[in-house]
Amino acid sequence: MDGSKAPVSEHVETSKAAVLEVASRGGRAAGRGLAVVDLILRFVAVIATAGSAMAMGTTNQTLPFFTQFLLFKAQYSDLPTLTFFVVANSIVAAYLVLSIPLSIVHIIRSRAKYSRLLLVFFDAAMLALVTSAASAATAIVYLAHKGNARANWFAICQQFDSFCERISGSLIGSFAAMALLVVLIVLSAAALARR
Amino acid sequence: MDGSKAPVSEHVETSKAAVLEVASRGGRAAGRGLAVVDLILRFVAVIATAGSAMAMGTTNQTLPFFTQFLLFKAQYSDLPTLTFFVVANSIVAAYLVLSIPLSIVHIIRSRAKYSRLLLVFFDAAMLALVTSAASAATAIVYLAHKGNARANWFAICQQFDSFCERISGSLIGSFAAMALLVVLIVLSAAALARR
Repeated sequence: MDGSKAPVSEHVETSKAAVLEVASRGGRAAGRGLAVVDLILRFVAVIATAGSAMAMGTTNQTLPFFTQFLLFKAQYSDLPTLTFFVVANSIVAAYLVLSIPLSIVHIIRSRAKYSRLLLVFFDAAMLALVTSAASAATAIVYLAHKGNARANWFAICQQFDSFCERISGSLIGSFAAMALLVVLIVLSAAALARR
Repeated sequence: MDGSKAPVSEHVETSKAAVLEVASRGGRAAGRGLAVVDLILRFVAVIATAGSAMAMGTTNQTLPFFTQFLLFKAQYSDLPTLTFFVVANSIVAAYLVLSIPLSIVHIIRSRAKYSRLLLVFFDAAMLALVTSAASAATAIVYLAHKGNARANWFAICQQFDSFCERISGSLIGSFAAMALLVVLIVLSAAALARR
């Protein structure tokens, strides 16, 4: 009985180990897939935020005539909120560039734990930063387009049409980065859950 | 040899199982601790966002005199951004109330995976929503305080002092909720990493 029991239990152990090995390989491949998607999304987000910052930072318009108004030349730095927009988008773009090496490490070491937690924290903080920049700028751009009759704030876009088109357009990259960062946070959490 | 080998390997297996059991219990206790902190932070965040929405939503000021200006009565709904602030904070407060039962489930079942991933996704989305509300309102409140000489926007706070104090104060809860949601996302990710 003892002689025949050993091989059977050995066989069972081996097949168990084989099943675990296959499951582990499958999990590792899926984890690697998540890490690759993470890397690609980070590249896209860098382009989106850097593009936003550059589009806003190079905006100015000089009117071809003088009026009785003080304002005849407009640039983004006239409105402090738009300056914040440029600075915040530059910071987020710089952070995303710095996070790319870590993202590459995660493709190789798909079981990394603390580095992923670090990324989740910084991604969430950067999500807050880019969202605050995008929506503060949107509030000001909306005001520039529509004005506010109750507060006696005039719609400056009636004179500065190309300026307003440019600052409206540069918001897009920032909002795209917002959506990408939400996806990046969920991807990191999914990779942590899969380990 | 065969007779003496079996008890030894059995003993080794038993002690291994005991070690794993202790480790698993330790992990489970830590996971439960994270889930309790998660629940407490959710309660605090509900109070912060609901308080913000109520403080902003009940703001109005009537000036005791008539002036040549159109504006002699101010309330939050005069500025569309402040209306968005009230709506967004109410939505986030409602979401947080709905997420409390799930948070309680996580205290009992500390190894839950998909429900935690769901919470990470919605927490990130709500972080974006509350941040956008807080910072858009901040941009407008800043403008109400300081005005903008280049765009001919006047500082309305010179007349509406108590209105401005109230709308400035109601931003605090929203910014607190922002920080709390970042912590909640990291806590969920940590719980997923610990499993």
